[in-house]
Amino acid sequence: MSNSIKLAILGLGTVGTGVINLINDNLDELKRRSGRDIIITEVGTRRQRDDIDATIIQNSDLMATAASDNVDIVIEVIGGTTLAKDVIMHAIKHGKHVVTANKALLAEHGNEIFAFAEAHNVHVAYEAAVAGGIPIIKVMREALAANKIDWLAGIINGTGNFIMTEMRDKGRPFADVLSEAQELGYAEADPTFDVEGIDAAHKLALLASIAFGIPLQFDKVYCEGITGITLQDVDYAEELGYRIKHLGFAVRRDGQGNADAAGIELRVHPTLIPQEALLANVNGVKNAVLVNSHPLGQTLYCGDGAGAGATASAVMADVMDLVRVLGSKDRDDQHNTGHHVPHLAFIPEQLSDTPILRAEQMTTGYYLRVHAYDSPGVLADITRILSDAGINIDAILQKPAHKVGQVPVIILTLPVVESQMNLAIEKIEKLDTITDKVVRIRLDELA
Amino acid sequence: MSNSIKLAILGLGTVGTGVINLINDNLDELKRRSGRDIIITEVGTRRQRDDIDATIIQNSDLMATAASDNVDIVIEVIGGTTLAKDVIMHAIKHGKHVVTANKALLAEHGNEIFAFAEAHNVHVAYEAAVAGGIPIIKVMREALAANKIDWLAGIINGTGNFIMTEMRDKGRPFADVLSEAQELGYAEADPTFDVEGIDAAHKLALLASIAFGIPLQFDKVYCEGITGITLQDVDYAEELGYRIKHLGFAVRRDGQGNADAAGIELRVHPTLIPQEALLANVNGVKNAVLVNSHPLGQTLYCGDGAGAGATASAVMADVMDLVRVLGSKDRDDQHNTGHHVPHLAFIPEQLSDTPILRAEQMTTGYYLRVHAYDSPGVLADITRILSDAGINIDAILQKPAHKVGQVPVIILTLPVVESQMNLAIEKIEKLDTITDKVVRIRLDELA
Repeated sequence: MSNSIKLAILGLGTVGTGVINLINDNLDELKRRSGRDIIITEVGTRRQRDDIDATIIQNSDLMATAASDNVDIVIEVIGGTTLAKDVIMHAIKHGKHVVTANKALLAEHGNEIFAFAEAHNVHVAYEAAVAGGIPIIKVMREALAANKIDWLAGIINGTGNFIMTEMRDKGRPFADVLSEAQELGYAEADPTFDVEGIDAAHKLALLASIAFGIPLQFDKVYCEGITGITLQDVDYAEELGYRIKHLGFAVRRDGQGNADAAGIELRVHPTLIPQEALLANVNGVKNAVLVNSHPLGQTLYCGDGAGAGATASAVMADVMDLVRVLGSKDRDDQHNTGHHVPHLAFIPEQLSDTPILRAEQMTTGYYLRVHAYDSPGVLADITRILSDAGINIDAILQKPAHKVGQVPVIILTLPVVESQMNLAIEKIEKLDTITDKVVRIRLDELA
Repeated sequence: MSNSIKLAILGLGTVGTGVINLINDNLDELKRRSGRDIIITEVGTRRQRDDIDATIIQNSDLMATAASDNVDIVIEVIGGTTLAKDVIMHAIKHGKHVVTANKALLAEHGNEIFAFAEAHNVHVAYEAAVAGGIPIIKVMREALAANKIDWLAGIINGTGNFIMTEMRDKGRPFADVLSEAQELGYAEADPTFDVEGIDAAHKLALLASIAFGIPLQFDKVYCEGITGITLQDVDYAEELGYRIKHLGFAVRRDGQGNADAAGIELRVHPTLIPQEALLANVNGVKNAVLVNSHPLGQTLYCGDGAGAGATASAVMADVMDLVRVLGSKDRDDQHNTGHHVPHLAFIPEQLSDTPILRAEQMTTGYYLRVHAYDSPGVLADITRILSDAGINIDAILQKPAHKVGQVPVIILTLPVVESQMNLAIEKIEKLDTITDKVVRIRLDELA
């Protein structure tokens, strides 16, 4: 038994059950790789389950399991930010390493949790918290450790990507696809977290911290959902060679000589990206993260962002890493976090206070849909306003009128600071010939 | 100085210079992440260079540098399998950790080198040896450590992928594109290693070992190059919804009840894959590896497979991992390999002797191009031969005659054991109506 690693699983929902199944299925492989027996000694569950191996203690007192002497590593898969936080802090206090899939908890309380773990010489691992089974945390913290990361763009919410994919492929409107996603179990009964981008913002906050070495700042993520995307815009985008995806972006801006413009953009929003980009071809519930770093250049990581198997894979990858920390036979102490990657990739005292830019300071290209009466000079008026604001037009598409006398004009712009675009749109909307609010969607060439 | 990590670089070609540039460019970032100064103390180079920082010792005696007291980690980027092997073994004997990008050396002598390193309690890291900057070694050894890997398929030679991409996109014949690749510096003056698939086979041998926990067996990789691929076949494939890529496959077969058919397929060959697969859309010199594992499912990793920046990124990721091994302040000994991932992902005594299947035992789908006189009954003859051999046809395309009286018939088959296909093709070629050798290219749905 001294050679075995003892796990506790707190929460026996989809993911907890997935972890148990994984260990049962791959027991030999785990031992061949680690040289150790990896066993679940205890599960924390409110409801006694009779489909669990009898050798595993089932404990309805989750705090007791988190602190049990019979446990080396605590796996938290309860979800939520209240009880989950309590059990994690309790486990840390009792010297347990923790593995969690809880993006909301870490995005909102990660700074406190990681500091507490560092003070107690244990590690909180969280590969499963971002992009499910895609090992993006390991990749960014370790594989890209010698790179300076310039930006990343990710499809990090499977439900949102499923909806955008169905809208495009089958010409189905948003509400229709959302209902199906709920029936399929992709979207929660309350889909707000998915379709308003909050779930993606949680994950983006984590990715940005490990990309740039900044504290977690979920509250500063600019967040726009997909509820306003229409089939009309999906089609216009395709016609112009683009595809609309719901993306999270973390971008480092040097301000190009203007110190006030230097900082980090954290934003989640629908985005037109070139059709031929691999990211544009990541469909259905798949997730993908594109990272641009120096000197490596662009790398892409793609796979299942949710589901029992994918999440269990990430949880257990963290366990296998911790097994090595716990496992060295020649160690006197159990913890030895000096060997471990820092929680936020950079050593805590080296986290930087680089400012997070406000929405008005962010720079992106734009897709504009402008509805105007078909009167002579309207296009001239619009393009002059854009030109006066220093906004460069990349493409224009003027479609035939679909209501009598009204034509949508589609304009793609080169990157521009949002405050400039706000002013220009304000002026365009004041034109007598304009019949509706201007629709705007951000655009990124991913270059 | 006691807090600094001292590197030696052996070889100052493209990659060695790339490593120096990376360290100069990202010095702050490396320190912010590792908490240590990472410095190059010595370079091993035959020719004295005057563009190297004066604080770095330049030593033309590479063996001396490999054993220098002034060095913690030796980076071998000489290439080749003779001197490179000598300096690596020498470094290991002197207790140095080694980082190498040398796929040929490891594929051919890795079993010996890794055993020697284990005996000397040091680690030989080799992320840069496969797929350049894509962290596929780390992903497979660590991120997928809880998975059972079923198969992988990779574009692991950038030159080959560049050639296949140009042939398809621009309709240029093989020889023409190869010349350009040589001018651009993608392909060597002697392109054999790239276009005959030997370079890909080296990488595949490494990937297969860490996927399945088997010793390196480069000599058993079935290897087919791209020199025989014609524009005609590229076009037919596209017409049928497929794209031809040069891929390396490592596949675990359970034999489906037949013990003789159980084993591992290691093969490199042109392959038709579905156009809509992400892998089919990885173009130019990019590399990508698709891994199918349980319970995670399919994940894809894509990026630059070669070049100074990408390779230096991978080399330095290995260094950053070793820094953690070397770095823990509370360690008494320097090495502590117990904390490190096993060289071939599985602990050495757990490597398995699963047999590698011979070519005739391998199972794939096929694209067949058959040229026949346009006489009645020829299609019936061909399909009967296939049917008698138990080969299922998935699609047929009969094109109009391009020479008088002769029509190419294109047939796509479901997966079949190669020995069966050999027999069928032999029979087809004996038909009086058949005018040429049957052209065959393997096909995989990547499902």
